[in-house]
Amino acid sequence: MANQLFIRNGILLTMAEDSSVIENGSLLVEDGEIRALGPAGSIPMPARARVIDAAGCVVMPGLVNCHTHLPMSLFRGLADDLPLDVWLFEHIFPAEAEQITPASVRKWARHSCEELLLSGTTCCCDGYFYGDGVAEAALLSGIRMVAGQGVIDFPAPGVPDPKQNVAAAVEFVRRWTGRSSLIMPSIFCHSPYTCSQATLVTARQAARDLNVLFQIHVAETGAETTKIPRCGDRSVVRYLDDLGIIDDTCLLVHCVWIDEADMAIIKKRGAGVAHCAESNMKLAAGIAPVPGMMDAGITLGLGTDGSASNNNLDLFQEMDMVSKLHKAACADPGVLAARKVVTLATLGGARALGLDRKIGSLTRGKRADIILVNLGKPHLVPVYDPFASLVHGAKGSDVTHVIVDGRMVVENGELTGPDRS
Amino acid sequence: MANQLFIRNGILLTMAEDSSVIENGSLLVEDGEIRALGPAGSIPMPARARVIDAAGCVVMPGLVNCHTHLPMSLFRGLADDLPLDVWLFEHIFPAEAEQITPASVRKWARHSCEELLLSGTTCCCDGYFYGDGVAEAALLSGIRMVAGQGVIDFPAPGVPDPKQNVAAAVEFVRRWTGRSSLIMPSIFCHSPYTCSQATLVTARQAARDLNVLFQIHVAETGAETTKIPRCGDRSVVRYLDDLGIIDDTCLLVHCVWIDEADMAIIKKRGAGVAHCAESNMKLAAGIAPVPGMMDAGITLGLGTDGSASNNNLDLFQEMDMVSKLHKAACADPGVLAARKVVTLATLGGARALGLDRKIGSLTRGKRADIILVNLGKPHLVPVYDPFASLVHGAKGSDVTHVIVDGRMVVENGELTGPDRS
Repeated sequence: MANQLFIRNGILLTMAEDSSVIENGSLLVEDGEIRALGPAGSIPMPARARVIDAAGCVVMPGLVNCHTHLPMSLFRGLADDLPLDVWLFEHIFPAEAEQITPASVRKWARHSCEELLLSGTTCCCDGYFYGDGVAEAALLSGIRMVAGQGVIDFPAPGVPDPKQNVAAAVEFVRRWTGRSSLIMPSIFCHSPYTCSQATLVTARQAARDLNVLFQIHVAETGAETTKIPRCGDRSVVRYLDDLGIIDDTCLLVHCVWIDEADMAIIKKRGAGVAHCAESNMKLAAGIAPVPGMMDAGITLGLGTDGSASNNNLDLFQEMDMVSKLHKAACADPGVLAARKVVTLATLGGARALGLDRKIGSLTRGKRADIILVNLGKPHLVPVYDPFASLVHGAKGSDVTHVIVDGRMVVENGELTGPDRS
Repeated sequence: MANQLFIRNGILLTMAEDSSVIENGSLLVEDGEIRALGPAGSIPMPARARVIDAAGCVVMPGLVNCHTHLPMSLFRGLADDLPLDVWLFEHIFPAEAEQITPASVRKWARHSCEELLLSGTTCCCDGYFYGDGVAEAALLSGIRMVAGQGVIDFPAPGVPDPKQNVAAAVEFVRRWTGRSSLIMPSIFCHSPYTCSQATLVTARQAARDLNVLFQIHVAETGAETTKIPRCGDRSVVRYLDDLGIIDDTCLLVHCVWIDEADMAIIKKRGAGVAHCAESNMKLAAGIAPVPGMMDAGITLGLGTDGSASNNNLDLFQEMDMVSKLHKAACADPGVLAARKVVTLATLGGARALGLDRKIGSLTRGKRADIILVNLGKPHLVPVYDPFASLVHGAKGSDVTHVIVDGRMVVENGELTGPDRS
């Protein structure tokens, strides 16, 4: 018998191209795939399906977190109220040298996966060291993950010799290729200011050869160009483009300090951008030109960044912050209306990761990454527009059910992951 | 027998002048008053006290929300992504004319009181019409409230003849003076652009005569001066000060568009300011100069504003937004560190409302407005600094117990208010 799940009585926010909302909808999952969805009564309920009553709930694609460093939850709140360079070089790198081990990576990545799932995120894109521990944590928790092994020109956790950094990442990708349909290995070059041109080019070529996503922090702070040897008066985006780094299998993280010429490059190359509003705000790194990127047609998703600079992984809170930040920054209440923000956190993120054929919307044939959000709590009543309720009212703690690849991993707000059932 | 409550094993954030934190502390409440607090073992546990085990929790003063319009939860999400004047004049005022009745005010104020209590707010300062319904809702829910009756030079709900606006507010204050120690009546003049000079001066004098707080929206948008007849080229603060409005029983709400001269006036007069970051952001009204106000020594509290412009009443989320917004706006990650933000949301708010002798800190002799926040949930682990955990990690839904005036109104995250017990 097929493994069937039937969700009924919910408000279906499909987040598909046509942005359709089905007020009282049903959805059928079979063997991890969305097989059918439509208004109540339009889809017969299979006799043996497991039934979820979504009355009073929104049913929507799981949220996609485009940029995390999951093991860094260990450093949540360790060093706040500091600028990026002080925070990173004086606090985080030393703490990592001391405390990051395969065991601590596995433990805190697992912890973070649970935090993500409990707050409605079904897919994340991570970049860290000891990538095996992160990917194993994902497998155990049941989340979908792009897992990036870090490349940096310093001695790093698990890669004491920087000369081996790209080779270690390549080996990681090979170990995880084809191992689980939920884990997509990736190469994560830390940044243009911590990786030489040779490292950038070699790592980029390796990712192309392996056919995996290439992630990199780009233009996070205004002073970044001054820290890049031979950058000259070029922008960081131009510098990377001149090296042939940027293409449509590339995820550019942050892009705070970019101008229209940079946007034109990013758009032309088809790269994705991960916008990390809360982290950028907390580190006072700057405010990314998100409305401009959207106008330019750039593929854009949201990321929380690591818990050490946020300090949480709740994409519901991030959505509210993104909407309000850019309204304030642009002095225009019309920018980033709720529906657009929910699109960024779902289909937009899936596109930025190159996964939109698989996930990001409730669409027949896509994998079943689905969440239910209870709109009946006092802080969400009344509901005029479910998108506004999700962005400006809902918290991760309002998520009641989380399904990844057809498997229920959160039920009634509690984890029920693979190794719990 | 005295009504006793004994809280033990918690991390006590006193928020008192000395900012002391008691890592493993006990606190005794007797007849609604904080009678003693100190390290474990320093206070004998009375034999008949009701005991609350706060292990793994922060114990802190309840949050103070300095600006709300509680019945407006009815309009939560009704009209988003609009500028203030369109939102207010084309959507909210018409909706109020149609839907605001004594019954709807009572119902939605009650609803909002429950949202506030469930998210850890024990005292709010409200301004609306049909003030009796709001105050009655507060009494029923068990929250502490400064309840303001609105004054505006238009026909308003319950005050069809604007000529009666001040008289109606005076009658409201008289009805509620001395009725309950939890309800402080107040006069809420809507704004200098919706009230004439005569109305402002008369209402201000009435509040002084009645010895109650005078609340007013001030300098919310940049265009405000152009809407005030005879304001000339004066700032709004200067205009009000020239009318003799501003003193130390005055709460100035918003103060987004103020300069250093305005701050000097506010400081000199001793008025309090309610900062409503999320509402200002959502309406793109501007960014208030909060670090400047703090440097100037102005008494400052936080407000959510109404649910129609936020769209929630969660002060935990507001704290995170306040910290991150001003770090971003000032390009300085050092501003509004977590401990300062928690102070704004507790003692700062109590001062702004003139209630700091009664509430705002865990101090012997103050009334027992206390909350417990569970720091053990995945998104709050580990804890290096409880203030950072509260500001950047905690949500209203992490509040487990809420005590107002010694009475437990939320227990294990569920309401247990006066009319429930």
